[in-house]
Amino acid sequence: MQPTALISALRDICGPNGIITDLTALRPYQIDWRERYHGNAIALALPQNTEELIALVKLCQQQQIAIIPQGGNTSTCGGAVPLSNYYQPQLIINLKRMKRILNLDRVNNSLTVEAGCSLTQVQQAAQAAGLYFPLSLASEDSCQIGGNLATNAGGIHVLKYGMMRELTLGLEAILPDGSLLSCNTALRKNNTYLDLKQLLIGSEGTLGIISQATLRLFPPIYDYFTFSVAVNSLSQALCLLECLRANYSNNVAAFEILKAETIELMLAYHPDERLLLRAPWQLIVELEITTEFSLERFYRLLDELPLDLNQLIVATTPTERKAIWQIRELVPLVEKQHGYALKHDIALPLSALEEFLAVNMPKLLACVPHGYFSIFGHLGDGNLHYNFGIKGASRHSISQLEQQISPLVYADVVALGGSIAAEHGIGQTKVAALPTTLNSINYQLLRQIKNMLDPANLFNPGKIFPL
Amino acid sequence: MQPTALISALRDICGPNGIITDLTALRPYQIDWRERYHGNAIALALPQNTEELIALVKLCQQQQIAIIPQGGNTSTCGGAVPLSNYYQPQLIINLKRMKRILNLDRVNNSLTVEAGCSLTQVQQAAQAAGLYFPLSLASEDSCQIGGNLATNAGGIHVLKYGMMRELTLGLEAILPDGSLLSCNTALRKNNTYLDLKQLLIGSEGTLGIISQATLRLFPPIYDYFTFSVAVNSLSQALCLLECLRANYSNNVAAFEILKAETIELMLAYHPDERLLLRAPWQLIVELEITTEFSLERFYRLLDELPLDLNQLIVATTPTERKAIWQIRELVPLVEKQHGYALKHDIALPLSALEEFLAVNMPKLLACVPHGYFSIFGHLGDGNLHYNFGIKGASRHSISQLEQQISPLVYADVVALGGSIAAEHGIGQTKVAALPTTLNSINYQLLRQIKNMLDPANLFNPGKIFPL
Repeated sequence: MQPTALISALRDICGPNGIITDLTALRPYQIDWRERYHGNAIALALPQNTEELIALVKLCQQQQIAIIPQGGNTSTCGGAVPLSNYYQPQLIINLKRMKRILNLDRVNNSLTVEAGCSLTQVQQAAQAAGLYFPLSLASEDSCQIGGNLATNAGGIHVLKYGMMRELTLGLEAILPDGSLLSCNTALRKNNTYLDLKQLLIGSEGTLGIISQATLRLFPPIYDYFTFSVAVNSLSQALCLLECLRANYSNNVAAFEILKAETIELMLAYHPDERLLLRAPWQLIVELEITTEFSLERFYRLLDELPLDLNQLIVATTPTERKAIWQIRELVPLVEKQHGYALKHDIALPLSALEEFLAVNMPKLLACVPHGYFSIFGHLGDGNLHYNFGIKGASRHSISQLEQQISPLVYADVVALGGSIAAEHGIGQTKVAALPTTLNSINYQLLRQIKNMLDPANLFNPGKIFPL
Repeated sequence: MQPTALISALRDICGPNGIITDLTALRPYQIDWRERYHGNAIALALPQNTEELIALVKLCQQQQIAIIPQGGNTSTCGGAVPLSNYYQPQLIINLKRMKRILNLDRVNNSLTVEAGCSLTQVQQAAQAAGLYFPLSLASEDSCQIGGNLATNAGGIHVLKYGMMRELTLGLEAILPDGSLLSCNTALRKNNTYLDLKQLLIGSEGTLGIISQATLRLFPPIYDYFTFSVAVNSLSQALCLLECLRANYSNNVAAFEILKAETIELMLAYHPDERLLLRAPWQLIVELEITTEFSLERFYRLLDELPLDLNQLIVATTPTERKAIWQIRELVPLVEKQHGYALKHDIALPLSALEEFLAVNMPKLLACVPHGYFSIFGHLGDGNLHYNFGIKGASRHSISQLEQQISPLVYADVVALGGSIAAEHGIGQTKVAALPTTLNSINYQLLRQIKNMLDPANLFNPGKIFPL
């Protein structure tokens, strides 16, 4: 099919406003959030419902056009943008026009939505019904539920509520052959052999495109108790976590950490920020509490730990709570503003975190003595954003260093039973790293599944697997 | 290979005590828990480690011997026993000799075990370390962790903690080609593309045999508040659930129900049981509580609901708690003792449960006017054991009725968005029902995965899919 005939066929499916080919309008959809990948698509499709989606997939299948599923385009590893100079034409399918709330079932505590709903929209729909959806990410205003599912999103509440996988009851997706996978049930128990929705969760757009989902809602949170405290070491932080879990059980809802250098970096951009502590590490912790929460008991517990209570900030109002969380939310923005660093999104068993830092940090400093570590993240889940920066380095020199440094990080992560992709996924950034860190049997099995569902490699080519 | 040579080759792998061929000793491994399926195996293998397991699978692969993975043999749907008169020889591999606790990581709140550990053994290992593993089933003394994983076991704490799937961080399994799938990590976040362990969870022994697992542990429970109360209807029960969740959040850990006829059945066998209430439905509810739990507040909450507080039993001691739970645990035993009934393990959205009963019960009674309904189960998860009995019926007549009755049940379950296999799985019992209730695209995809991993159909043939 000739390009003009193809565009016209696409317009027949999505209507005149549903297909965008203007280069200026296309641009933001072709560049990733971190602005590292600039791709080329023949067009952007904005379908309005599952039927249009199926028709798009079937047309692309027939015409051998690659499909780039896209939600809010907030991937940090180039997972949601087209490739540059790919041999096949690429079509971006963004679900932003599919954002209907389909069903809020208060008795069943579940919410069925179209995949283009933003995470904030879902949180608000739950709240409006007196319920709660716990997934919470820095990009929640713009990221879409379909993307949250395709990347198995994490965020700050995994410690208590699990990842997006655990928060999902059902989903509907269009498979690469254009058939509709209907697993969009609202059931908490469903053992009819394999749980097929698991094939799409974390698939990063390579096995189909998610069109709807049913999410698990929770009782509302009566109140939060939020505090921030300085600690000298990871093991001191983990002691506090153990104490809190022993006393507040699963109501420890967030347990975040920032390293001194991250705090310095933030002070460089926000010198007036008074909630940043001068310490080797700063924690941000949140408990979900009820009327019965005793502040006195909390202080008694902390008194027994080797903590410096002069370095403790307790939020006593919702405004103060918000201010503490704003620190945490600033981190990725300051990191982005500050520019190039070698970023690693790693997870380790909590018991191996300290050893990892002790083993790996000297290796990186041996390569680049003037490098600095900005480390922050979801300590309670064992997930650190382990970023290594070099002052004044250019994007080009950082990219070159990446070839040398990242394998050193990943080797130690894997040796200690960790993951090189805790919550951000593989995308384009980690295509080469994946087979070097996964067992070859596992890697081959992943490939087998991809080949089974998408033999022509039309869905998000160049992501996960090399071309 | 001749039979004697084969047995000798098996003995070379597992040692003289590791292969059982004596018919009397074999018998309990060839008959399922409900005694409906009597199979024939050439032998029972009792491997002691992963290496022996791999060698067994490779030998079976080479000799085209079917493998029946078996844990505690507590399947209620014939999922763990060999077929009768199958054209290929069948080898039962039971993991009871692989029951080592491999690693209890207190900092990481995780426990790595061999798949032959009993559930009780795991619960106790967690408890000994001051932690908690929440999976709890009637068969916990005999069922094995490998079976819990292969069937994605449920039980009474799903409401708060999820199914076995949600309680599992990692696993190791031998795939049908004899290769070792190593996903036995202890990570809470791991997004290296698809989560391969999901292929084995719920696979019912058809895609490989699970050899090890790493389980998620939780903070210990300070105390329980357990009570039992009568309600007139499901909607009254669901009102209570909503009230409890609004006030005690996710600390509602169990919410079980028994129907009047089930209570009557129990009284027939245990006439002195004083904790059984005379009511249309009886609930058994458990909250996880802390020092701050106020009994006064609890009574205030209940006062506002239309409940008959003369029909309320509150456990005030651990012994009383145990007595309440004994009622619930008795149900499947009494059901087994009472004999033949048409059993259905269904799940529905909570909002559809009452409609299902209103629609379906009259249809069954129209077929068998003197039938009775013994309904009990995990109401909080939408999972009912919906059993239809006929007084004085023989096993043969029940089996014949099954052909007529079960499709009526399943059609209404599916029409209302439910599942025909909530927590017991498919096994042999529901092989014919599965394709009639699943979407054909989903069913074909399940078959494709089975064919991809086990093209010779050597793993648990005749389960899930027809021969």
